[in-house]
Amino acid sequence: MPQKFEVHILGCGSALPTRKHLPSCQVVDVRDKLLLLDCGEGAQLAWRKTGLNWQKISHIFLTHAHGDHVFGLPGLISTMGLLGRTAPLFVHGPSTLQPFIQCVVEQFCTNLDYEIHFEPVDSTRHQIIFEDRSMKVWSLPLQHRVPCCGYLIQEKPGLPHILRKMIDFYNIPTWAINHIKAGEDWKTETGEVIPHERLTTPPDPVRSYAYCSDTMPTADLTEWLRGVDLLYHEATYADDDIDQAQRYGHSTARQAATVARAANVKKLLLGHFSARYDDENVLLEEAKSIFQNAFLAHEDLRITP
Amino acid sequence: MPQKFEVHILGCGSALPTRKHLPSCQVVDVRDKLLLLDCGEGAQLAWRKTGLNWQKISHIFLTHAHGDHVFGLPGLISTMGLLGRTAPLFVHGPSTLQPFIQCVVEQFCTNLDYEIHFEPVDSTRHQIIFEDRSMKVWSLPLQHRVPCCGYLIQEKPGLPHILRKMIDFYNIPTWAINHIKAGEDWKTETGEVIPHERLTTPPDPVRSYAYCSDTMPTADLTEWLRGVDLLYHEATYADDDIDQAQRYGHSTARQAATVARAANVKKLLLGHFSARYDDENVLLEEAKSIFQNAFLAHEDLRITP
Repeated sequence: MPQKFEVHILGCGSALPTRKHLPSCQVVDVRDKLLLLDCGEGAQLAWRKTGLNWQKISHIFLTHAHGDHVFGLPGLISTMGLLGRTAPLFVHGPSTLQPFIQCVVEQFCTNLDYEIHFEPVDSTRHQIIFEDRSMKVWSLPLQHRVPCCGYLIQEKPGLPHILRKMIDFYNIPTWAINHIKAGEDWKTETGEVIPHERLTTPPDPVRSYAYCSDTMPTADLTEWLRGVDLLYHEATYADDDIDQAQRYGHSTARQAATVARAANVKKLLLGHFSARYDDENVLLEEAKSIFQNAFLAHEDLRITP
Repeated sequence: MPQKFEVHILGCGSALPTRKHLPSCQVVDVRDKLLLLDCGEGAQLAWRKTGLNWQKISHIFLTHAHGDHVFGLPGLISTMGLLGRTAPLFVHGPSTLQPFIQCVVEQFCTNLDYEIHFEPVDSTRHQIIFEDRSMKVWSLPLQHRVPCCGYLIQEKPGLPHILRKMIDFYNIPTWAINHIKAGEDWKTETGEVIPHERLTTPPDPVRSYAYCSDTMPTADLTEWLRGVDLLYHEATYADDDIDQAQRYGHSTARQAATVARAANVKKLLLGHFSARYDDENVLLEEAKSIFQNAFLAHEDLRITP
């Protein structure tokens, strides 16, 4: 079974609140490490419903300093403090977010038992901004009304899979299995060396998830998204509102699908819907006419890249 | 029919989010003028469900600078801007709130088409802090861990009621009715003067609503609440957690009811429930054993003082 890589949509609306959607917020669960992407108002309430463990969140990636992407952060920070968090929290985002975070911490979080580290992201450069044993996170410069940055999360290769039959055949003890997975050969009692490749099959292919909210389409972005397994792309408007989209630095569903097709991504998830659409299927149909493997995001959606 | 005076509970939880409650927020509708009392996270989403008109809100009264009472303010301010508000908004509260409001406005609301006036409230004095034709709002010094201030809203007398039979009897035309209500006598065609008191019955008795969250009980507070029609009083804990209540500057349900009884209020509404109570009836029963006319607040409750 592939290792865990899940995206939980907590909110996929845009600036104006509706009865259907919360503002932007997602949790990405990579092998039980939880990343938060944006943190709109109500994020902590939506989080609570997921049943995910608050303490497993160590990194928050914010796209830009617009309220519908960050107004849930003060409550989340406070609540993690009340729940006894001690592990440091890393908040990544354009430097325009620093004054807000600093103000919230100074005014409301003077008694926190954990540290908040703000890590400014250069929203003009495509580069690795975080890396651990399980993943790399790349910045994705977006084109919006203010400095804005999407994120690309790439799994690192997992361990190879053990061939149970071979293990039984050579009577290899359990303690040796992790060594073999890590690349050691096995030496039998008679001194025969069995190459680890004969005892395993290759690890699962690595997967990738890209989060692009809010942005107009750009040629660079399309390049950086090439071959991504799952692309969340904003589709604030339908194409007959393309003037609005351009004016406010957003995309239409058709534009999102055009990016998905040009970048040859595997799956497209549309989100950041304007409050004007009672029936978002108009956005979906528009996208599907360009790129068939498109879906509408919705709160409570859990999806694997 | 008495003039409109309604309290809408939008949130009555305390600091930790639960599936049942939003943090503190209420709307008070006095003759179609809307006041907001506190503004916890999610206030704008809850407001949306009430169907009330965003533009009719002119005054927000905040009790203190704890997140569960104010983290909904940035979203509300932004959304009213997006919706085209032009009327000024007055935000009242202890001066400790000013840096937060200033930061939000500077960072996120530079393009608002309306002005936000912060009106600092001296949380140590009981005095009238706002008055118009329909109401007076008094500050209620509360005792909490930080400067904190409740609010008492008193109706002003309405107009007397016209006695329809007398109007018909003297054949008084419609145009004269508002003059009579305003205290003018009526002169018949034959010159007879009919005193306005004979043509009307007195206005409805004035009503009052007090909002006390968060506080320990104090003797002064009990005095200021004397005879109030409806008292919302925090009841964060049950009495077997009285140590917690004292430590964090809160009240137990028994203490809230004791205040209600001593102040001879007409009705007690309990709120600001700790997340620890799955069944808040334990709080209600405790209060009722002291003061019978007690109720639990809940989201979506609409109640008239």
